[in-house]
Amino acid sequence: MTSKEKVAALREEMQKNNVDAFIVYSADPHMSEYLPQGWQERAWLSGFLGSAGFVVITKDKAGLWTDGRYFTQAPIELAGSGIDLFKDGMEGTPHYIDWIISEIPQNGKVAVNALATSHANWQLLEEKLGAKNIQLSDSPLLKEVWKERGTPSKNPIFVHPEKWAGKSVVNKIADIRQKMEDPEAGVHIISSLDDVAWTLNLRGSDVEANPVFLGYIIITKNDAILFTDLEKMEVEARKQLDDSFVKMMPYEEFYNHLQTIRNEKVLVSPNSNQSIFEALKEGNQFIKAAVPGNLMKAQKNKTELEGFRTVMVRDGVAMVKFLYWLTHSAGKEAMTEYSIGQKLKGFRAEGENFVGESFGSIVGFKENGAIMHYSAKSEGSKEVTNEATILVDSGGQYLEGTTDITRTFALGTPSEEFKRNSTLVLQGLIRLSMVKFPKGTRGVQLDAIARLPLWMEGKDYNHGTGHGVGSFMNVHEGPQNIRKDMNPQELLVGMVVSNEPGYYLEGEYGIRHENLIAVKESETTIHGTFYEFETLTFCPFFTDTVVKEILSEEEINWLNAYHKKCEEKLAPHLEGEVKEWFLKLVNPI
Amino acid sequence: MTSKEKVAALREEMQKNNVDAFIVYSADPHMSEYLPQGWQERAWLSGFLGSAGFVVITKDKAGLWTDGRYFTQAPIELAGSGIDLFKDGMEGTPHYIDWIISEIPQNGKVAVNALATSHANWQLLEEKLGAKNIQLSDSPLLKEVWKERGTPSKNPIFVHPEKWAGKSVVNKIADIRQKMEDPEAGVHIISSLDDVAWTLNLRGSDVEANPVFLGYIIITKNDAILFTDLEKMEVEARKQLDDSFVKMMPYEEFYNHLQTIRNEKVLVSPNSNQSIFEALKEGNQFIKAAVPGNLMKAQKNKTELEGFRTVMVRDGVAMVKFLYWLTHSAGKEAMTEYSIGQKLKGFRAEGENFVGESFGSIVGFKENGAIMHYSAKSEGSKEVTNEATILVDSGGQYLEGTTDITRTFALGTPSEEFKRNSTLVLQGLIRLSMVKFPKGTRGVQLDAIARLPLWMEGKDYNHGTGHGVGSFMNVHEGPQNIRKDMNPQELLVGMVVSNEPGYYLEGEYGIRHENLIAVKESETTIHGTFYEFETLTFCPFFTDTVVKEILSEEEINWLNAYHKKCEEKLAPHLEGEVKEWFLKLVNPI
Repeated sequence: MTSKEKVAALREEMQKNNVDAFIVYSADPHMSEYLPQGWQERAWLSGFLGSAGFVVITKDKAGLWTDGRYFTQAPIELAGSGIDLFKDGMEGTPHYIDWIISEIPQNGKVAVNALATSHANWQLLEEKLGAKNIQLSDSPLLKEVWKERGTPSKNPIFVHPEKWAGKSVVNKIADIRQKMEDPEAGVHIISSLDDVAWTLNLRGSDVEANPVFLGYIIITKNDAILFTDLEKMEVEARKQLDDSFVKMMPYEEFYNHLQTIRNEKVLVSPNSNQSIFEALKEGNQFIKAAVPGNLMKAQKNKTELEGFRTVMVRDGVAMVKFLYWLTHSAGKEAMTEYSIGQKLKGFRAEGENFVGESFGSIVGFKENGAIMHYSAKSEGSKEVTNEATILVDSGGQYLEGTTDITRTFALGTPSEEFKRNSTLVLQGLIRLSMVKFPKGTRGVQLDAIARLPLWMEGKDYNHGTGHGVGSFMNVHEGPQNIRKDMNPQELLVGMVVSNEPGYYLEGEYGIRHENLIAVKESETTIHGTFYEFETLTFCPFFTDTVVKEILSEEEINWLNAYHKKCEEKLAPHLEGEVKEWFLKLVNPI
Repeated sequence: MTSKEKVAALREEMQKNNVDAFIVYSADPHMSEYLPQGWQERAWLSGFLGSAGFVVITKDKAGLWTDGRYFTQAPIELAGSGIDLFKDGMEGTPHYIDWIISEIPQNGKVAVNALATSHANWQLLEEKLGAKNIQLSDSPLLKEVWKERGTPSKNPIFVHPEKWAGKSVVNKIADIRQKMEDPEAGVHIISSLDDVAWTLNLRGSDVEANPVFLGYIIITKNDAILFTDLEKMEVEARKQLDDSFVKMMPYEEFYNHLQTIRNEKVLVSPNSNQSIFEALKEGNQFIKAAVPGNLMKAQKNKTELEGFRTVMVRDGVAMVKFLYWLTHSAGKEAMTEYSIGQKLKGFRAEGENFVGESFGSIVGFKENGAIMHYSAKSEGSKEVTNEATILVDSGGQYLEGTTDITRTFALGTPSEEFKRNSTLVLQGLIRLSMVKFPKGTRGVQLDAIARLPLWMEGKDYNHGTGHGVGSFMNVHEGPQNIRKDMNPQELLVGMVVSNEPGYYLEGEYGIRHENLIAVKESETTIHGTFYEFETLTFCPFFTDTVVKEILSEEEINWLNAYHKKCEEKLAPHLEGEVKEWFLKLVNPI
């Protein structure tokens, strides 16, 4: 079926159900960023494969809303689908709800699948549509259209041992129960997969690149229950839960079980799906707040930070071997963006405790580098030669931690303009790496520091500067980030974030430099406590594309010191030609 | 009466009325920052004269909550009052509502004066106290305690002509009516004094340093009514309102008139006082949103910006004359912080169209410089010699515009440490002056740019980097600012803000450097539209306290170019010894 045919089939279902507009979010019942098998409804319907975006279908129109990362990719993937691109965040782009209101009749009906719609979003829809007398209904119409969704993953659920997690399940649940006390919550629901896995020191692989498994947790004063596919539980995993007084019930029982909860104060995130709220709304009171474990998870403990430091050496060694291979083979042997990604995965796989990629590698050659979250497919990806620049954004999942790194460099002779822009981006990364800031500072206050070198030349990048990173967990996690958005979350000691400014020139090239950094205490003075970042990632930048004059002395010193540190960490694990080449790479500028 | 006696008298009233806690905000019925005659209830009761802070009195305890600007000043002024200082924003300081809840009995009663409490604040109180079954009542108990409040100002209300306002009253009201259309508001209430004055192109002097007058406006589709003391209206002012179809009614009639409004959608700011909401709540629907004129007022038009540029020359000339006098007289003739402020006012008064100070000058000699919003009183202010550093923060109201400037410099030989810190603060000011940023950027994103030089050394300042400034209007105005706080207001073309980083070493000295800057368009590139700041203020900084090595080449170039501009603007208006001295001051470093 083509996208066009799929949309037509959906429209038939809409007509049968008197639905004037149907919204397909990129979501699953756990509000995951990357979707488990069978839940890629938006991608299936539209053909658009980006990580963010949703589709609205009316009787005669269809639109995809997505953000700046995908303005180049989306039109290509949407071609022929009959779905128009709406560029979110650009002037003149209507809000999708306003657009729906303008497109459908008064007293019309809008439908979504409540299982794949967050409560917060449901409420927004209800409010805005309700004001125009438009009805909102929970009708999972795509069920009837997309029938062959494959079988759910049967991948094992295994223990993430305390030697790497740094904190026992018993202590995590005790801490969560303590956080339930102040709002006097009797019941707490955890539905986000990374929070489920973190709470129980378990891992799985139900979602590509994310070491999570499908599950829900209900915590009460006396009980904790995991709802999951029990067949997938390894013996040690079952034992760990038994020892931690956590009960196990089948995944399918979750919504039935919710029906037994009555007259309770329920602590549940407004980002949980609407079906949970529907199941609980009778007789219960909601405390809508972030999952307490979410912030605990974000503040990595000493063991987890040590895990990051450990895997960064392994990851850096893999990166250096890969970079050596790529720079020495490009133009000599046939390769594509896709095959390069596979090669990189191979180098990582040589490392101890490597589990898999932390996301599908983004290898963007030449103008493809400007497609911000480009993912080269196995077929038809661009041939890579030694005649242009390349952006490689990749990461690994290791049992001890997660990595995420981007390097952009020239396989041919780069233009002066590329070198200038590449240096400006690197300058942003360096400035953010060096920053010291008072306790209480939020990411939004630091974001401009990384952007300023570009801003001063009328340049910018259409993505955040930094996202939280999990510990052998999702490569994107909250609640902290470093973005233009007004995220109220303060940066706290132990939080790991990416530091990834970029610059994209459509049709020409893309530049992104990315390290992971962790918040740590710097000093306490009479003016308060100050934090700074520890750079976790170890892998040199290519100094042949650095325009030294752009950097200040302090910035040059930082770069040289960073390369010195890379040498200390990685050189002992390298040998022969690779090592020789590497030692030249880390030479001071 | 001493503060102790006043508190005792208030407690008697509280007992009579069964009130367990009484809150005295620093507020008037217009939610003014600077209070009109008779409304300085908090200052009268507590003795604390700071611009921000409020007092809570219970049966046996009393507390003043204020922010970092006043942590040094408040204990001095509170001495002997029996009122404890609660340092707002510091770790361990309870929120005052939580404190009240912990101090008074369950089912107790809290009272405030609804006329001097914003609706937003009333709602917060009601919610938090209500959850603990504590009653909130509108009981203006201080009426009975503070009886001699003086007579309200009879100062004239005069026209601020279109040649300086840049827009007619008719057009302003038409624009406001247009903004009422989308939320379908039939009635709009304006209660903030600067918005009242701005809307009607009128000015007054009912509040110290703020050219406003007591008044309310009600705008409907067909009517506009000003409620004010009609005796104060100058003939031309009456004529202007007549010509603009604005009716006039006595100030006292406002709340009676509100009673006649029924079955309307009323657009009113949640920052308006609670009594307005009480008077309207029966039968009307509220649209709680910022006054539309507030944002219009913030975006200065070409005429207003030209006014700023004009008065900055006058103000700069006054400042240079003052600085010459001070640096050449200190240590030779007797002077105090207060007398210096008066002298500066005298230099300003020589300028054309000078109306008065835009706020009481802050002259902080030596350790008094560290008291952030210190205001030296006529009696007992510190003697100034030629042996320490001095901070002078002052501003003028001119018919064409408003100024606000701070210079900090050494009257004796400054320490190396002072010079270093002074340079770091100046570096922050320079960096913010030079910044270019994309349209859509908020102040919170730029705040750290001014702080970073200090942050890198574990230093900071406990106040915002920038506040909005009015056009012959309040020296503090919203909605924009440049602060750590999460203010969602974007910086828009024409907005004027202060650029005033600082550094304060308690018991030693204070440093603040301040210019006014205006947002203007910089360039539109393929990456969007970028803005930058135009520095409006013209007055040299003292380069003898600049440590050149701290500044980058670009920063030094900025400073030299700024001084060149100061020379161009101010030198033609100076002569003799002053000019000679000035020309040395603006020499490049």
